[in-house]
Amino acid sequence: MKPFIHEDFMLQSPTARKLYHEHAERLPIIDFHCHLSPKQVADDHHFASITELWLGGDHYKWRAMRANGVAEDYITGKASDWEKFEKWAATVPYTLRNPLYHWTHLELKTAFGIDEVLNPSTARKIFDACNEQIADPSFSARYLMQKYGVECVCTTDDPIDSLEHHRAIRESGFVVKVLPAWRPDKAMAVGDPHTYYIYVQNLQDASGVEVKCLDDLLQALQNRHDYFAAQGCSVADHGVSQFPWRVAPKHQLDEWYTQVLAGQAVSEEAVEALQTYILLELARMNARKGWVQQFHFGPLRNTNTRMFKRLGPDTGFDTIGDFRSAHAIVSFLNQLDGEDLLAKTILYNINPVENDIMAAVIANFQDGKIPGKMQLGSGWWFNDQKSGMEKQMNALSEQGLLSRFVGMLTDSRSFLSYPRHEYFRRVLCNLLGDDVEKGLIPVQEMTRLEQMVEDICYHNAKQYFRF
Amino acid sequence: MKPFIHEDFMLQSPTARKLYHEHAERLPIIDFHCHLSPKQVADDHHFASITELWLGGDHYKWRAMRANGVAEDYITGKASDWEKFEKWAATVPYTLRNPLYHWTHLELKTAFGIDEVLNPSTARKIFDACNEQIADPSFSARYLMQKYGVECVCTTDDPIDSLEHHRAIRESGFVVKVLPAWRPDKAMAVGDPHTYYIYVQNLQDASGVEVKCLDDLLQALQNRHDYFAAQGCSVADHGVSQFPWRVAPKHQLDEWYTQVLAGQAVSEEAVEALQTYILLELARMNARKGWVQQFHFGPLRNTNTRMFKRLGPDTGFDTIGDFRSAHAIVSFLNQLDGEDLLAKTILYNINPVENDIMAAVIANFQDGKIPGKMQLGSGWWFNDQKSGMEKQMNALSEQGLLSRFVGMLTDSRSFLSYPRHEYFRRVLCNLLGDDVEKGLIPVQEMTRLEQMVEDICYHNAKQYFRF
Amino acid sequence: MKPFIHEDFMLQSPTARKLYHEHAERLPIIDFHCHLSPKQVADDHHFASITELWLGGDHYKWRAMRANGVAEDYITGKASDWEKFEKWAATVPYTLRNPLYHWTHLELKTAFGIDEVLNPSTARKIFDACNEQIADPSFSARYLMQKYGVECVCTTDDPIDSLEHHRAIRESGFVVKVLPAWRPDKAMAVGDPHTYYIYVQNLQDASGVEVKCLDDLLQALQNRHDYFAAQGCSVADHGVSQFPWRVAPKHQLDEWYTQVLAGQAVSEEAVEALQTYILLELARMNARKGWVQQFHFGPLRNTNTRMFKRLGPDTGFDTIGDFRSAHAIVSFLNQLDGEDLLAKTILYNINPVENDIMAAVIANFQDGKIPGKMQLGSGWWFNDQKSGMEKQMNALSEQGLLSRFVGMLTDSRSFLSYPRHEYFRRVLCNLLGDDVEKGLIPVQEMTRLEQMVEDICYHNAKQYFRF
Repeated sequence: MKPFIHEDFMLQSPTARKLYHEHAERLPIIDFHCHLSPKQVADDHHFASITELWLGGDHYKWRAMRANGVAEDYITGKASDWEKFEKWAATVPYTLRNPLYHWTHLELKTAFGIDEVLNPSTARKIFDACNEQIADPSFSARYLMQKYGVECVCTTDDPIDSLEHHRAIRESGFVVKVLPAWRPDKAMAVGDPHTYYIYVQNLQDASGVEVKCLDDLLQALQNRHDYFAAQGCSVADHGVSQFPWRVAPKHQLDEWYTQVLAGQAVSEEAVEALQTYILLELARMNARKGWVQQFHFGPLRNTNTRMFKRLGPDTGFDTIGDFRSAHAIVSFLNQLDGEDLLAKTILYNINPVENDIMAAVIANFQDGKIPGKMQLGSGWWFNDQKSGMEKQMNALSEQGLLSRFVGMLTDSRSFLSYPRHEYFRRVLCNLLGDDVEKGLIPVQEMTRLEQMVEDICYHNAKQYFRF
Repeated sequence: MKPFIHEDFMLQSPTARKLYHEHAERLPIIDFHCHLSPKQVADDHHFASITELWLGGDHYKWRAMRANGVAEDYITGKASDWEKFEKWAATVPYTLRNPLYHWTHLELKTAFGIDEVLNPSTARKIFDACNEQIADPSFSARYLMQKYGVECVCTTDDPIDSLEHHRAIRESGFVVKVLPAWRPDKAMAVGDPHTYYIYVQNLQDASGVEVKCLDDLLQALQNRHDYFAAQGCSVADHGVSQFPWRVAPKHQLDEWYTQVLAGQAVSEEAVEALQTYILLELARMNARKGWVQQFHFGPLRNTNTRMFKRLGPDTGFDTIGDFRSAHAIVSFLNQLDGEDLLAKTILYNINPVENDIMAAVIANFQDGKIPGKMQLGSGWWFNDQKSGMEKQMNALSEQGLLSRFVGMLTDSRSFLSYPRHEYFRRVLCNLLGDDVEKGLIPVQEMTRLEQMVEDICYHNAKQYFRF
Repeated sequence: MKPFIHEDFMLQSPTARKLYHEHAERLPIIDFHCHLSPKQVADDHHFASITELWLGGDHYKWRAMRANGVAEDYITGKASDWEKFEKWAATVPYTLRNPLYHWTHLELKTAFGIDEVLNPSTARKIFDACNEQIADPSFSARYLMQKYGVECVCTTDDPIDSLEHHRAIRESGFVVKVLPAWRPDKAMAVGDPHTYYIYVQNLQDASGVEVKCLDDLLQALQNRHDYFAAQGCSVADHGVSQFPWRVAPKHQLDEWYTQVLAGQAVSEEAVEALQTYILLELARMNARKGWVQQFHFGPLRNTNTRMFKRLGPDTGFDTIGDFRSAHAIVSFLNQLDGEDLLAKTILYNINPVENDIMAAVIANFQDGKIPGKMQLGSGWWFNDQKSGMEKQMNALSEQGLLSRFVGMLTDSRSFLSYPRHEYFRRVLCNLLGDDVEKGLIPVQEMTRLEQMVEDICYHNAKQYFRF
């Protein structure tokens, strides 16, 4: 019986197989947005077990286990590594058709050379086999990054971060570039004055700027922006639920901001206006430095209060929001474009029904100077599976130029997520191969198509980010 | 020429055919939500003709006929049974690609053994053949339910219903379980004080509770909830257009409610706040009894005033709304989850663009105690066709566990709708078979896949509802 | 090597090929909505070059070039015809999977007999070959319309237009009917009093009615409506961003309207209320004349202020909006239906996620008198490609009767866009053929299916519009 994950997995046509094996498979990985711990790279972290490595922080798996009736103790609780793994193994056969099923086996295959499918009957054997490899002194964070052919990653870092680990990595001579990315969301979180106050204290310390008003905040952020740049950062990332767009006079913003700093709650309108103002200023900083800026928008976060109190954020209780964002985003981009301060920009929508809208929006701000200056990001989070990737690529193809797409990123907290690049490349090659088989793409342009595959998998990102 | 409806209809691959014929085809039907008349079951109703049985209340067919230019007289008017059937037969060939085309021929085949396609040239012959069978004394409501292997159905019943027919059915020893389901929508319809007043009078009579305030209403409903439970009910169903979420202080709610009872119109905000409060209380009742609760949300109803005045509700003039419901639903479920009063819940969205949102929402409230506690309901109403079912199953697969899905329900007013379970099972097996053929589901897990088919078609519902 | 565009392009099955070649291919074209210049038809315009003909006003191509990093000078600027063509040719290979790639080669093939794919290596040869043909005295606007088998087109005309060119065309005995279509959007544009004032002056001149109040406006429009009818117009077209629905008392509307005429800005609510009122009145005019009315709704226009100032409207800076329109449209149609003044109506939604909603909405107002009275328009603008057409036809199929669909229109400014009808027909035949191959449409109804293809390609529009 052929193993589940074999060399032609997901490649349904001869053209797809040729495109993948001859043009996509061996290219290096540029992972321009992820949530890896720079400390673990700096320390070249070794893992206690497959459970730590695989189940430790993966809220996708946690959600599946909860849906399968697994008690929290076996997910985030005190159960043993083996007990947790056993529960996951018992859940895996119930995840058929969920992307987890594919990822799981792709990871077992590529990281550990395991061909068997994971289920209760193979669980112990696979647990032991993985742990044996993990116990090898050579098996570490850096080992995995090199094994998967990673050339460069960008982590996700707060303006107050010292970036000491990035510096340590750089100075260690590690062959993989590990760069910081600027994520100043907390500097915009004026809706909760108490938490915000604490953040501002930390920002003061980090920046050396006393923050007594809105202008001070921006000065503090500018200082840290400069510092990040000096540390090799050239990518910003901004996460919002509802994309803000509300314009208010500066004196009014100043007044509201002072109230926030004084610990007073302000109206929703005031929050949105302040966020609009700060986000515009941050975008201008990005443009002036020639950075790439990314916007992740649309999720509803921490929707389950009971579990938030127990586990905190990013534990599997976020969801897809249904905000209307077209007007806000268009207005935001238009404002910056009019000032000639629109940086290279990648938009990631969480609600897949916005794919066509955002693919059309970016076309309105392509300026004819940088090919693919405005990008629609690869299927994000809840869309990070075969059909989500296909929908994103179809929308981009129909409203813009797929050829100019900067492609895949893991957005992951795990060192085992690099096979998602392989997954993406297989999906891409399968999609294009199918078009060729159906005569929708001409064989006359096969060389261009092959180049297009290589571009999307590697060269476009290389050229766009200039790491 | 092979008949249109043959044993492998819609099953495009060998795996699909094997899954269907060996695992899905012969399982009993649990129809956990429908609109059948319990009186007709109690009376073991005999039908006057195929026209009564088939066209009598089927607003899907009515819509198609109107779109085809058929005058209302031949649809809901005084034309003869034959004339109405003839008009329907003339419309059928124009419904190619509409689900009605498939349903029509599946029903003719499975209920009457008719292999010919319905069109003007076959209309008389088919009319006569059906009517001959219908005229047989054995051909009745109960005959059809048994013929289709129905094990259990839940009807849709108002709190004021006596449930006398359910009792009569039970006492008659009919082998099919016919259970009531609690549908208290009218108790929430405070937007129209005049109609509401009449309803409250009836609720007073049914419950023995005088309703002078909001607390009285809830006491009256609690009495009836208890009565329904005593009559074997364990399923609630709640229908709303825009899912309500507006929190107001109790004294304010009391004041508004008193105004409604006094026949005064209240603001839209007051209506939404009252509905939020009542729906939360109803959901708590459901949880305390261990019932399953279903939420059908999103349609715009009775959009054509001219036809509403002529024909009343549920006659084919409803449509898909485009409300934003993510925030409201998440807040509602979160409130109940925080009180440990979130019952097993099925969400049915009418707008198919909400599939991904709702599939992601339910995952946030899976509590690790009951596998598949939170469910995304099968493609509802305007989505009740091949592609709608596929979209719902794809969304559920990608955001959750298809394996835990409780599957199909007819939601129908007709005794001839049971083939929709066959239709669903064929769609399901075709979808899974296609994945196997493409190597997306491993042959190594074929036994699990076969069990998954059986679970979705029967066992999951059996275990979830515990009828 | 088979040419890219060959006789079976996009036809994946034997049934698709048979349907297309025997039933769709040779039917005349009724292009019931386009933006051609009636003057160019009247003058039988000759083109200076393939650049003028092909790139002169095509903002789809412009968007692709901008996304590919082409400077504006080579798009809308002063570069030479050859330079612009060369930049377009260099962009074409980067448009793989964008509809432009198919359109481009379909146009080269059908207008010029060119089989080669366009890219930098073929650019000069193709440029010269096209220009040689264009230079022939016989190559003109009318030549192209006849070459493509056009029977009738409707242009898009403002109430103030004299329609002199339509008259000239008619009097010239040109075999293709070129009819005006009534597009009174500017008469509703009360949100910008300054521009509106100028328009009203022109409307006064054209109608001979002095406009001092809202009733005057409607009288002026009625005069022009009558004039258009006398000139052979029987089609209206209304373009809106957010579909308006706000009811206000007449005296209030009168007051707001007087303010607008006096150059005063009014509130957004006032604008929406005025637009609701005027649009209802316009719809009543359409009904009284037995016209067909079209509603194009949902785009966000002129989103890039910098480029709007430079190039004006319709230059590639519009996008898909995400308005909620179900309630407004349903209310609007219900109002007219209740007065028995709902004309034959075609709805075009720009946001593809509204396909199902609008396909369901129209079914609520089918009146059983005219088959297919209410229509869902073919995939519009950003949806004007294979997958957009398929989505529109699937939604219509599932919620209504595809058989009654009036089919394709170019909506184009170019005399080279008629192959989009061929493209549509191939997509349609491919879709239906695939269903037959899968047994979803019975071979027993092949004759009906063949007729359905012919109806959608030609006869339905012929009967619906009665040109």
